[in-house]
Amino acid sequence: MPQSSAILLMTCKDQPGIIAHITNFLSQNRGNIIELRQHVDREENIFCMRLEWELSQFTIPATDLAEYFGKHIAPRYENISWNIYFSNYRHRMAIFVSRLSHCLYDLLARYKSNELNIETPIIISNHQELEEECRAFQVPFYYFPITAENKLKQEEAELQLLQSHNVHLIVLARYMQILSEQFVNAYPNRIINIHHSFLPAFPGARPYHSAYKRGVKIIGATSHYVTTELDEGPIIEQDVIRVTHEDSIDDFVQKGKDLEKIVLSRAVKYHLQHRILVYNNKTVVFD
Amino acid sequence: MPQSSAILLMTCKDQPGIIAHITNFLSQNRGNIIELRQHVDREENIFCMRLEWELSQFTIPATDLAEYFGKHIAPRYENISWNIYFSNYRHRMAIFVSRLSHCLYDLLARYKSNELNIETPIIISNHQELEEECRAFQVPFYYFPITAENKLKQEEAELQLLQSHNVHLIVLARYMQILSEQFVNAYPNRIINIHHSFLPAFPGARPYHSAYKRGVKIIGATSHYVTTELDEGPIIEQDVIRVTHEDSIDDFVQKGKDLEKIVLSRAVKYHLQHRILVYNNKTVVFD
Amino acid sequence: MPQSSAILLMTCKDQPGIIAHITNFLSQNRGNIIELRQHVDREENIFCMRLEWELSQFTIPATDLAEYFGKHIAPRYENISWNIYFSNYRHRMAIFVSRLSHCLYDLLARYKSNELNIETPIIISNHQELEEECRAFQVPFYYFPITAENKLKQEEAELQLLQSHNVHLIVLARYMQILSEQFVNAYPNRIINIHHSFLPAFPGARPYHSAYKRGVKIIGATSHYVTTELDEGPIIEQDVIRVTHEDSIDDFVQKGKDLEKIVLSRAVKYHLQHRILVYNNKTVVFD
Amino acid sequence: MPQSSAILLMTCKDQPGIIAHITNFLSQNRGNIIELRQHVDREENIFCMRLEWELSQFTIPATDLAEYFGKHIAPRYENISWNIYFSNYRHRMAIFVSRLSHCLYDLLARYKSNELNIETPIIISNHQELEEECRAFQVPFYYFPITAENKLKQEEAELQLLQSHNVHLIVLARYMQILSEQFVNAYPNRIINIHHSFLPAFPGARPYHSAYKRGVKIIGATSHYVTTELDEGPIIEQDVIRVTHEDSIDDFVQKGKDLEKIVLSRAVKYHLQHRILVYNNKTVVFD
Repeated sequence: MPQSSAILLMTCKDQPGIIAHITNFLSQNRGNIIELRQHVDREENIFCMRLEWELSQFTIPATDLAEYFGKHIAPRYENISWNIYFSNYRHRMAIFVSRLSHCLYDLLARYKSNELNIETPIIISNHQELEEECRAFQVPFYYFPITAENKLKQEEAELQLLQSHNVHLIVLARYMQILSEQFVNAYPNRIINIHHSFLPAFPGARPYHSAYKRGVKIIGATSHYVTTELDEGPIIEQDVIRVTHEDSIDDFVQKGKDLEKIVLSRAVKYHLQHRILVYNNKTVVFD
Repeated sequence: MPQSSAILLMTCKDQPGIIAHITNFLSQNRGNIIELRQHVDREENIFCMRLEWELSQFTIPATDLAEYFGKHIAPRYENISWNIYFSNYRHRMAIFVSRLSHCLYDLLARYKSNELNIETPIIISNHQELEEECRAFQVPFYYFPITAENKLKQEEAELQLLQSHNVHLIVLARYMQILSEQFVNAYPNRIINIHHSFLPAFPGARPYHSAYKRGVKIIGATSHYVTTELDEGPIIEQDVIRVTHEDSIDDFVQKGKDLEKIVLSRAVKYHLQHRILVYNNKTVVFD
Repeated sequence: MPQSSAILLMTCKDQPGIIAHITNFLSQNRGNIIELRQHVDREENIFCMRLEWELSQFTIPATDLAEYFGKHIAPRYENISWNIYFSNYRHRMAIFVSRLSHCLYDLLARYKSNELNIETPIIISNHQELEEECRAFQVPFYYFPITAENKLKQEEAELQLLQSHNVHLIVLARYMQILSEQFVNAYPNRIINIHHSFLPAFPGARPYHSAYKRGVKIIGATSHYVTTELDEGPIIEQDVIRVTHEDSIDDFVQKGKDLEKIVLSRAVKYHLQHRILVYNNKTVVFD
Repeated sequence: MPQSSAILLMTCKDQPGIIAHITNFLSQNRGNIIELRQHVDREENIFCMRLEWELSQFTIPATDLAEYFGKHIAPRYENISWNIYFSNYRHRMAIFVSRLSHCLYDLLARYKSNELNIETPIIISNHQELEEECRAFQVPFYYFPITAENKLKQEEAELQLLQSHNVHLIVLARYMQILSEQFVNAYPNRIINIHHSFLPAFPGARPYHSAYKRGVKIIGATSHYVTTELDEGPIIEQDVIRVTHEDSIDDFVQKGKDLEKIVLSRAVKYHLQHRILVYNNKTVVFD
């Protein structure tokens, strides 16, 4: 298992000397730093860091690294939360979609052109409309119709499918179902949703209609990790576009589609590159 | 009273032939059109138009124009709301300010360099901090301290002052007082406020703090006409800027200041150029 | 041939009464105006207009309209250039592509989801790489390899193919060949290119490399009609995105791809909706 | 001389262990890191770092720090270029201006509201128009008329004045004179200009006219350090705004003014906060 680089993501209570200590540990083990990004939240006194280093001459084997770090480094820091990733890991990603295809196609086009560092994604939908297209892309498509009655049961089946495929990241590409608490809790900070408004403005259903009615001059899209509070999860990325009185609701929807796919794809990339730290329902994105 | 051009702003129920009728009226009276902007709200079936024409050869005297239009043209249209303005009119504008100077200075700098088509503005403040600066700009400054007890009385004094100066437009340049219903009703669609958030997100007090807490990736500013519903008036203009985890609340405030002054100045200009139509608590801005 | 609406695009020397005359012509023939957009270039004294009206009650048959306009209306205007289109016309569009798929996929996804008002597009490429994907989309793909020797001959074959398919619009979706003068002249203002820079900065080859070297803080993309002067044609649409020192050339390319596909698709839509007027190597886009 | 924090800016040839070595040096001397920002230019193999640390418990006196660093730390690094600054240093800034006031007023308003960490700036102009306004702001104004004949002599007098005021940063706030090589070389990477275009598009005179003629859909402004090559110095910051066919050249100028003042002020702030590194005619801005 050759590894090109290792990535440490960590948060802990701030204290003097963290960077010196950890970079020294790398230096002594011949781990040349590729990128160091740190941030201190002075209000909360929380230290955040993303550290990436070359593994070619690193003296600790990749397979032992997590154990070593957990035993020798992590214990020095209060309230530490950390993970170590490897850059050559190929993520397994599931895309959930309903009837609107724009975010799905955008992700599939990126997958096909090797823009995303993923294995073949699997696609799960509560509708059958997009099945044939996905087949053309040679991507497996699973149909799970959802009703009020079967919802929890279908979600269980979905979870089994996801686990059998070893899926680590779920992307809701305009999936028009609210996931149950149980489902959300199975993938903490690993379900990314795209909401078609500039949150916290216009949460919930039909945000473009609400934006049109309010007469805003700019509309937005927001990608966020899904939590059990609807549209309240940590925001990963947002972007906006101007609208005018000449734009109908249909124009809002159309302009919004282009926003949604770009904003969602950025969030997915940040996640796949291990550039996101989450604490206090907020994200630090070392983009 | 030589007039360079006349500007008609109108809304009415949509019906066939409006443009042909009114442009014919102009053509027959030798009023050469400088700019015609129209819009139909198809959901509400409302026709909106801004029409500007040269007066140099126009056969109806400027002084008779409003009467003529009201008698011969307007009655053909259902639910018509209209106004005629003259481009060489010098507006009388009052700026209300509290302690923060950035929007005030920005407007004064534009006034000094003849960017705004206004007579000397008057400045009203509930604090004295900025008085000396305004004097340096040679702009009259009036101090009206506000308390819960004296508020209505002070507002009456302000209204008298405004009327004695023949003020037509009030700009709230970060004025930290909520105006009474009586005051607002005295200047319908003629009080412009700048709110330091991307409305309808974060209305009310301390929006930058709320935005920081929510972890948004973009902050905004919104200029709107003041109505009796706080931060609910018709939006005139909005703009946004990116923020990251590295931005503290102070950074939000700082970045926001630059947004606020630009967004407010744009709204003021649209108003001074008679480019804004209001209906259903929304604006049409023919910018 | 039922027509929902007609669209007039015209430029002429400015003169008084144009709008009154033409809107009267419509009004007298029961053509209810859906949208009127006009602009006067005061430096060049050129009048521009886009006028769209309902055909349901219009008394002049759609099939006679162009002849009628040419005979009775157009002759009154100096230097007039005009066209009449019908909103229900389904354009025939050809997409030229080389090896990069992002713009092609984006257009195909829009076509598949009925976002673009076109018949099945045809695809022409000087490489075979993308053929299989296009087949999956069920869109015909034609391979025309180009060398210095066969170029003119291949272009002739392409022109024959385009004419046999009655193609009206050619979109260069990152097509890495310079078209000959003869080819360009066969489709005046009907070939849209996407250039991967903020023109006029960085024309020609490898603009991202040049932008990187120059150390710009923002990169852009530009869609324009193709003329015989490379990257000098009338600009239709531009957009930009921020870059920092952390962005490598590869990051420029990646960020640029997202720009290119959005900017190109906007230009294509403006064209398909007959919203673009061209004069003096500039465009008026009534968006 | 109490110091709140020290800031190291450095570039050198990249080598393993730089961060570990320097952060260890700080840690051993009880210098708690406030912010560490680093970047490696992999094409040029150059390491860049901005490091800020608290001085309250730091064991090396601020007055000895530069000497210590130069003797004990810097020699380990090839091609090192470094500076140490103190956050409580109050910069001395000169503003050069001609007739256009918008950038000057914007900077003065920021100075007056303590947004910029500077001593009273001095103002130098080749015209007298703005003298009275500057007096109102209580900022010293020096008039140096420039002709082809007196230019070098006047520049010498300006340099003497600047040195007598101990000026470290010169800001050209729409100063319409080209500085001589001798003048520029006296303030390397310490003269910031605002150019009213999106460089490298439209360098030189009358960029808005050129942009209008070319028919661009977006205009920009660029702040850069001045070098002896006109408009070719390292770019610090850029921003853009949309224009349409409805914008005249005057509108370009007007929209541009708002861009220019924001872009220039950002560049000035980055400089005052020691956030800019320069190498190979490019900047790294750790904003």
